[in-house]
Amino acid sequence: MKPTDLFKTHPLLSDRVRLAIMAVLAASEEPVSFTELAEKLQLTRGNLSSHMQKLESENLIEVKKEFVDRKPSTTYSCTKLGRTEIKNYLVQIEELLKKV
Amino acid sequence: MKPTDLFKTHPLLSDRVRLAIMAVLAASEEPVSFTELAEKLQLTRGNLSSHMQKLESENLIEVKKEFVDRKPSTTYSCTKLGRTEIKNYLVQIEELLKKV
Repeated sequence: MKPTDLFKTHPLLSDRVRLAIMAVLAASEEPVSFTELAEKLQLTRGNLSSHMQKLESENLIEVKKEFVDRKPSTTYSCTKLGRTEIKNYLVQIEELLKKV
Repeated sequence: MKPTDLFKTHPLLSDRVRLAIMAVLAASEEPVSFTELAEKLQLTRGNLSSHMQKLESENLIEVKKEFVDRKPSTTYSCTKLGRTEIKNYLVQIEELLKKV
């Protein structure tokens, strides 16, 4: 592996917060609600919201808005592409780790 | 490990280019010259220089300027702190993404 291979990973994943969001979503079998994500990652709603919009615009996550018991509910899940990109990122990181 | 543990890693490493620079330096037993780094990472001198200044200001790398055969030479090496921080960062990411 060349060090430049790291530049081929998805640019959105090279941010600690977005990486943590993706890890939570990819590790969960069920969609995760906005509120749960904000609590788990200790992020403000504004901060989380801005990251989610970026991830959604690149098709790394999927958003679902619906009414549950007459209340609006927003849940997120990791897309197939998101899962592929995160796995790719992990492989590169593991390669780097071996050499350090 | 909680996903928020990732936020305790060094903020400067949350950039692919800087991570690659640190990985090259940490993997090398000898100091690496500016020119070699720029070539290895395919970065412009201006871009590389700006990243190096940030890394140096946080004591993650050490710079040495000297004359070799009457020509000025700049070499960089990873500090002890830099090595600790990059290992910590890579291990945290690995732990986090392994669950995916």
